[in-house]
Amino acid sequence: MAVNVALLGAGRIGKVHAKAIGAAEGATLVAVADAFEEAATALADAYDARVGSIDEIASAKDVDAVIICTPTNTHANLIEQFARAGKAVFCEKPIDLSLDRVKSCLKTVEDLNGTLMLGFNRRFDPHFRAVKEAIESGRIGDVEMVHITSRDPGAPPPAYIQSSGGIFRDMTIHDFDMARFLLGEDVTTVYATASVLVDPEIGKLGDYDSATVVLTTASGKQCSISNSRRATYGYDQRIEVHGSKGAVSAENQRPVSIEIATEDGYVRPPLHGFFMTRYTDAYAAEITAFVHAIDQDQSPDPNGEDGLKALALAEAALKSVAERRAVGMDEI
Amino acid sequence: MAVNVALLGAGRIGKVHAKAIGAAEGATLVAVADAFEEAATALADAYDARVGSIDEIASAKDVDAVIICTPTNTHANLIEQFARAGKAVFCEKPIDLSLDRVKSCLKTVEDLNGTLMLGFNRRFDPHFRAVKEAIESGRIGDVEMVHITSRDPGAPPPAYIQSSGGIFRDMTIHDFDMARFLLGEDVTTVYATASVLVDPEIGKLGDYDSATVVLTTASGKQCSISNSRRATYGYDQRIEVHGSKGAVSAENQRPVSIEIATEDGYVRPPLHGFFMTRYTDAYAAEITAFVHAIDQDQSPDPNGEDGLKALALAEAALKSVAERRAVGMDEI
Amino acid sequence: MAVNVALLGAGRIGKVHAKAIGAAEGATLVAVADAFEEAATALADAYDARVGSIDEIASAKDVDAVIICTPTNTHANLIEQFARAGKAVFCEKPIDLSLDRVKSCLKTVEDLNGTLMLGFNRRFDPHFRAVKEAIESGRIGDVEMVHITSRDPGAPPPAYIQSSGGIFRDMTIHDFDMARFLLGEDVTTVYATASVLVDPEIGKLGDYDSATVVLTTASGKQCSISNSRRATYGYDQRIEVHGSKGAVSAENQRPVSIEIATEDGYVRPPLHGFFMTRYTDAYAAEITAFVHAIDQDQSPDPNGEDGLKALALAEAALKSVAERRAVGMDEI
Amino acid sequence: MAVNVALLGAGRIGKVHAKAIGAAEGATLVAVADAFEEAATALADAYDARVGSIDEIASAKDVDAVIICTPTNTHANLIEQFARAGKAVFCEKPIDLSLDRVKSCLKTVEDLNGTLMLGFNRRFDPHFRAVKEAIESGRIGDVEMVHITSRDPGAPPPAYIQSSGGIFRDMTIHDFDMARFLLGEDVTTVYATASVLVDPEIGKLGDYDSATVVLTTASGKQCSISNSRRATYGYDQRIEVHGSKGAVSAENQRPVSIEIATEDGYVRPPLHGFFMTRYTDAYAAEITAFVHAIDQDQSPDPNGEDGLKALALAEAALKSVAERRAVGMDEI
Repeated sequence: MAVNVALLGAGRIGKVHAKAIGAAEGATLVAVADAFEEAATALADAYDARVGSIDEIASAKDVDAVIICTPTNTHANLIEQFARAGKAVFCEKPIDLSLDRVKSCLKTVEDLNGTLMLGFNRRFDPHFRAVKEAIESGRIGDVEMVHITSRDPGAPPPAYIQSSGGIFRDMTIHDFDMARFLLGEDVTTVYATASVLVDPEIGKLGDYDSATVVLTTASGKQCSISNSRRATYGYDQRIEVHGSKGAVSAENQRPVSIEIATEDGYVRPPLHGFFMTRYTDAYAAEITAFVHAIDQDQSPDPNGEDGLKALALAEAALKSVAERRAVGMDEI
Repeated sequence: MAVNVALLGAGRIGKVHAKAIGAAEGATLVAVADAFEEAATALADAYDARVGSIDEIASAKDVDAVIICTPTNTHANLIEQFARAGKAVFCEKPIDLSLDRVKSCLKTVEDLNGTLMLGFNRRFDPHFRAVKEAIESGRIGDVEMVHITSRDPGAPPPAYIQSSGGIFRDMTIHDFDMARFLLGEDVTTVYATASVLVDPEIGKLGDYDSATVVLTTASGKQCSISNSRRATYGYDQRIEVHGSKGAVSAENQRPVSIEIATEDGYVRPPLHGFFMTRYTDAYAAEITAFVHAIDQDQSPDPNGEDGLKALALAEAALKSVAERRAVGMDEI
Repeated sequence: MAVNVALLGAGRIGKVHAKAIGAAEGATLVAVADAFEEAATALADAYDARVGSIDEIASAKDVDAVIICTPTNTHANLIEQFARAGKAVFCEKPIDLSLDRVKSCLKTVEDLNGTLMLGFNRRFDPHFRAVKEAIESGRIGDVEMVHITSRDPGAPPPAYIQSSGGIFRDMTIHDFDMARFLLGEDVTTVYATASVLVDPEIGKLGDYDSATVVLTTASGKQCSISNSRRATYGYDQRIEVHGSKGAVSAENQRPVSIEIATEDGYVRPPLHGFFMTRYTDAYAAEITAFVHAIDQDQSPDPNGEDGLKALALAEAALKSVAERRAVGMDEI
Repeated sequence: MAVNVALLGAGRIGKVHAKAIGAAEGATLVAVADAFEEAATALADAYDARVGSIDEIASAKDVDAVIICTPTNTHANLIEQFARAGKAVFCEKPIDLSLDRVKSCLKTVEDLNGTLMLGFNRRFDPHFRAVKEAIESGRIGDVEMVHITSRDPGAPPPAYIQSSGGIFRDMTIHDFDMARFLLGEDVTTVYATASVLVDPEIGKLGDYDSATVVLTTASGKQCSISNSRRATYGYDQRIEVHGSKGAVSAENQRPVSIEIATEDGYVRPPLHGFFMTRYTDAYAAEITAFVHAIDQDQSPDPNGEDGLKALALAEAALKSVAERRAVGMDEI
């Protein structure tokens, strides 16, 4: 196996992916592109890769695949450009904030018979994956109810919210994908309630910081999602699945698992304070899966369709909040 | 303190209350009534009490208070009769399945300046009470989101469901009261989705066995409730409250807290299999609180109004399921 | 079943036993004796029992059994007196601080074919009992290593230590009995190390407040015991058993099982602060077992021999500390 | 920072260290030596390093430091050779099975003013390190009692035991070092009891597979260690420290932290099955610390003296088992 990878975007998440490529057997980082050349150069140097422009990389014969971690508004165009160039594409979610643009982009990829993997990293978290495997093993019977708790340690800066598409498209989208991953059946109805409890600035931007979402499927399975932009105790990421024969859950991960007992009680340290330290293993595993799919000429998972469906659920949630009713996915 | 109590209803829950009266300092069980005289006699004998008829007890001078645990359809009439007789009344929930009848009953009690406590025993569970105290201490800041998991080990017989008023009036009603207890603010909107995943017989009776409910308050607080009539692992009763400064949760209680480790992993035994063993302490504490309120001439808590509001939430949930939309409490 | 019980000693532990008799089916408290008549009267009144002298109770025809919870130095004489009187005897540990006196007392009981149960209440704790049952089920294979953690919240007053016989005879004795209960094989060797880390006053009395003990059996099974007279976090009582096929452990019990998460971490409240609240269920269960043994005419368990063996282990531990070597039980 | 490292020994643990060097900032693997040239070549190729002989590496100008993970009987000679060659040395424990040889080796290093770090990787485990930090923070007051549980998933092959020096020198030695690390005071007395419960073959070789050790210090601190060569549930590695103001503990690490609940109870998967997956982070951190010490010209920790003292405790344990008494460290 020998897959040469180029990285588009040398920011925070780009660095995580560069490291993952370095650690993935059979993968080599050959080129880095970034609008800020200094950032590109620093990252390229660290991995013995070259700095290239988008166009140079698209036409480079030694590049098999690209990882797109540029700003969201460039994703769809880049996916199309690199699909046309015959490169396998890994793209950070979301493909675009517009459902229509996502659809046209996926159509292009499909027409070109292109390879596109979406960056829903949580599917690769070893603990959530073990939850999925427990379901598939049949030990808990048929899935009936899912509960996802997903809370950020703190709210992002207002500027981020303006470009992110808001809480449902930026934060809950991970939970929508996880819900689909675990329910094993398409969601038919979405209900969401949302409010501004954390930061009034977020409300001024027309967004929410606290949300509860309920998804239902045709057979009556139910999923509830609890989101907040604030959790003083750290990055709260838990999953529970209740089935006909039992239940399976994944607890929070902790940087250190000690407990201190004093006259005030038993204290364990707070959770991870940042998504990158919480999901270190997941980020590495998703790049490994991407490289493996290319090498084995397999269709990657999750793919563009998964990105589209999660975004559609976000749209439905927004509509539900506005109209205070359950929104059918056939309306979206 | 010396409060003489009569027990109306010598069934399963009546026995629990009899024991609680026996253990409550200052309380004495003096009389027992039951349509089945044998049941009344057995229980009366065990506590050196007499068997009496409803009317005899109502007019007995040595009876200060009654505990009503007869079938639901007798509750409202008995409350009124004993309020008129000047007895303090403790009544198992619900007062009636009809909101109108509950309202008229409460009006009667109010006009008589009567004392009425409702049997929402979970408020007296020491663990849930500690959750409430943690909130009141200010340690988690303002309450923002509540999540209640409430699952029965197994579905009740169809006959029970026919008279119970269905999952929302019979099972979720406890969670509605707990939500009110913890939110500290009136619920303004109810959304519920429900399905039949456990037993088709339940569906044939027009009821559901799996439900997810979302409550919201005027200030934007959110509460999700997850109910199932089946949990192979035991009586699943958990609470989580997320606030501006932290969170507090109450874990499941276990009959024995051992762990066995083998090559198959680490195993803890299942949860309690029955609500009476799970809530033993709560049942005792609520009777103690009732007796204490009488003795101190205080207004008991929770009261008839709490019973009415929980039932109204159940009505709203039913309407929400039917109309697939959030129902405002002003509509009920 | 109808067993009439008299209580000798109306102090702290006497009250616990009185309550247990009241709750045990088939048992009735008929008489109470105490050097302080007020204490005897108060307790007798609460349970509709009479106050009696030791001698009156010994000769009373309506007394089937006695529970001895008077000061330690009266135990052996009372056991003998009541065995002679043909009463079944339950006695709080220890029978006496002198091994020889214990032996002569047991000889007397044996010659009289008397019934004697020793108050090693922890054997009746539901969690420790579940550990024992897990062992007996064969799930962890052959027992190989036991670890007992047993720490008091705080040191007793010096006066108590003077009459208690010191840490090994008063505190570790419970762990010695638990070790015997779990090892299922006689201890052949005892090593103990002990020091004064908590309170120098304890050292001045010739006693220790911190001790580690290692027991071994003929087949090579090992048991370690960790004792301290101080644990700021509460009454620390844990057991671990490691076997050829697995392990089983019993965690600490907690008055409330909530967890509060803040920016400082996840906090659970301290443990029980007192042995009586920690072992409430155990105290009730041991009296039930005593009454059951009498009613069924069975030999009670644990018996005088168990009391003797635990005391002998305490003797060996003292000798081991003094001589800094492993002491064979054949030396005691 | 730029430290060039050579690796002596390309076996199992050599590969772990090679990876750690690759990941440690400022460190470069430049050469690999191994008696089996194929092993050396494979590892060297993977990290763009050269294959060299011991002597070539000792005289190479581009080598700043060596990591010794060859068989134990070569350690002392290699340490001396590379100390003479002016290289910083990291050596896997133990330096030698003979206390005298260890002493002469350390004398040589000292006379040369050499740099020697010992491979007690567990000191670098983030969870155990957090325990140490909790102690140093003063939160639990003065350390009084330590309990270390250390059990291997399965017994090593007899051939390994023959060359390893037996359970105390090969397995408990890690716990002896951890005890020293946590007690913060020299051990003065050692008591050990050991038996053969797992595999009679081990007994035939004159070794033991199950051991309990008690260490005491001059001020009366106590440490108990529980070792077994078998734990069906995985690699059991736990630490508890009890102090005057509280306690701190580190729980077992788990490859996946899910829990499955069924009618049989709540099941968590077994622990890690292998020391390398359990201590992945610790191995990386110790090499980082070694490189950092070289770069900063600091004395590494743990050093040769720590290796000597842990080995001396193993000697004392052996003597204690043989003589069934506590052995003073002044006797060794």
